[in-house]
Amino acid sequence: MSHAQRRERLRELLAERSLDALLISNPSNRFYLSGFELHDVQFNESSGFLVITRSGKDYLLTDPRYQDAARQFWPEEGLVIYRRNFVETLKQILADSGARIGFESRSMTAEMARTLTADRPLEACNGLVEQLRLHKDAEEREALKKSFALNHAMLEWVPGILKEGMTEAELSWQIERYFREHGASELAFPSIVAFGANAALPHAVPSQRPLVPNTGVLLDVGCRVDSYCSDQTRSFWFGERESDLFARTRDLVAEAQKAVLDRMEPSLPLAALAHYAQEVFRKAGVEEHFTHGLGHGVGLDTHELPSFHIYSEGPLEPGMTVTVEPGLYYPGQCGVRLEVTVLVEENGITVL
Amino acid sequence: MSHAQRRERLRELLAERSLDALLISNPSNRFYLSGFELHDVQFNESSGFLVITRSGKDYLLTDPRYQDAARQFWPEEGLVIYRRNFVETLKQILADSGARIGFESRSMTAEMARTLTADRPLEACNGLVEQLRLHKDAEEREALKKSFALNHAMLEWVPGILKEGMTEAELSWQIERYFREHGASELAFPSIVAFGANAALPHAVPSQRPLVPNTGVLLDVGCRVDSYCSDQTRSFWFGERESDLFARTRDLVAEAQKAVLDRMEPSLPLAALAHYAQEVFRKAGVEEHFTHGLGHGVGLDTHELPSFHIYSEGPLEPGMTVTVEPGLYYPGQCGVRLEVTVLVEENGITVL
Repeated sequence: MSHAQRRERLRELLAERSLDALLISNPSNRFYLSGFELHDVQFNESSGFLVITRSGKDYLLTDPRYQDAARQFWPEEGLVIYRRNFVETLKQILADSGARIGFESRSMTAEMARTLTADRPLEACNGLVEQLRLHKDAEEREALKKSFALNHAMLEWVPGILKEGMTEAELSWQIERYFREHGASELAFPSIVAFGANAALPHAVPSQRPLVPNTGVLLDVGCRVDSYCSDQTRSFWFGERESDLFARTRDLVAEAQKAVLDRMEPSLPLAALAHYAQEVFRKAGVEEHFTHGLGHGVGLDTHELPSFHIYSEGPLEPGMTVTVEPGLYYPGQCGVRLEVTVLVEENGITVL
Repeated sequence: MSHAQRRERLRELLAERSLDALLISNPSNRFYLSGFELHDVQFNESSGFLVITRSGKDYLLTDPRYQDAARQFWPEEGLVIYRRNFVETLKQILADSGARIGFESRSMTAEMARTLTADRPLEACNGLVEQLRLHKDAEEREALKKSFALNHAMLEWVPGILKEGMTEAELSWQIERYFREHGASELAFPSIVAFGANAALPHAVPSQRPLVPNTGVLLDVGCRVDSYCSDQTRSFWFGERESDLFARTRDLVAEAQKAVLDRMEPSLPLAALAHYAQEVFRKAGVEEHFTHGLGHGVGLDTHELPSFHIYSEGPLEPGMTVTVEPGLYYPGQCGVRLEVTVLVEENGITVL
């Protein structure tokens, strides 16, 4: 689907909500609707904004650094280059765009919202573009497949380079190099590479801990290819003598994952599906060691809609992606997480 | 200076403003005051918050993923682990912390600010921690020196690997590899590697354009070492026959940079110093080709205070860092930028 087609679909959502325009400040939403700049410069420095109007007169606003890049994606008549006059310029465009203007209050600083709404109210309106992004179109599915193919290739390559004495940080860098030298533009998120008890920390940072024989290894890794993220986790044993706790835990986590995957199909409620994993852990009496949700969507962001847990609302729908990543954590001892990502298609699911 | 000492200095600023507490949501400010997590997970997902109170009862709030990491930096009695009850937990702590509570409205989403201030007002209060961060202490100066030393080493190494046919993207990855394999934790920002006319784009993204003989090359690169950023730009000619435009432009930019560097010393106004560069370009009649400010501070963020341009307020002060990066851009032809970073010390300046 072209960027222009996506903007047309957004216009339909604006009409449903009787909004005259929506100011887009979320960088992934901006990229989804225009192809312009997936990232902001830094936390508090935007690369630009879109104003999408019901009338069809849309704007891309950015600063002079991005003028040339913006021209590749946006017609000259709707391209606005701001300098020090940013707020006044944006206010004028919003004033010209109608009476009811929405803004993404989850993707704008409180300070900017305060300034923009000083003279006239804007309506907080989140999740409209995310609602479109929830259902991946054909081009997005292709990009996701490429991103996950590289992720799989790396995971097949990595056991061959493991050796005693290698640190978590070294292995993490080898993984990043592999991704970057085989077509990834960047990591999708900082890799988690955890040996032994470090795997019990769901957010372990790769350390100087060396790999010793007979250790559990957890890799939670993702790359970005053609702008789309991949996200997978593997847990395996390094050495000959697998510990009983690790073996039992890995088997249980695999069973929980399979319990969900076997039952996933379009239109089933996410919450009910998440209960199948919970149920495996409950029966085994280890429920309290599963300390996070079951999964999340993956696309332009590593973490996007839908959330997948026992409180999720709504069903699996064609075009959705969702990770299935049960885990069990024993602080000071070991941790196991297994994660695959499912693409829901029209007639069933595909594990990416 | 220890994190605890920095928090004591912040308490003095709170007292000056009659604030009872400040809620910290800016990730670099959080790290500066606690050592905990320099980065947020992603744009709209925080790794945690600090509440610094005048009474001295401070809090670090985070979610279970970070519990172990947080314990390394924060005493157990002030550590609060939130789950789904995040907003209620934070509201309660703020209610217990006094009547006048500030928050960083430039580092919080409008949506979160709306939720937090639904029952009681909070006061927008930006730049307090940034005011402390403006003056680098001894440990920070050491980290900056290490980060810039690696940046210099890379820039000395890079001419030796340049060869005909190498693309901007390939060179960009070689530079990143060098940084990462020589002690950097990450890039400070995406490298700008631009050949020929691409150098005229102040925000060029490395492309598949190959290096051909007799081309201008612009490298704007930074790494992060011991949590601190470096940022340098070089422009040079690849080949034997330097073009007249490139040579003239490079000499003018070097002259403008020198005009500022020669006059920098503690207590001089930033705006007056920035005028010296402008003056060189004005006399040469090329003023309109200098399209950005002269520089910015560098520290935990690549872009931080002070801004350095002809509208800057206030003087150079000991402990400040500031880039000096004049540039001239001829769209479709060539661009030259030269950037060094200056550390202002008690008795003069040091080029990092």
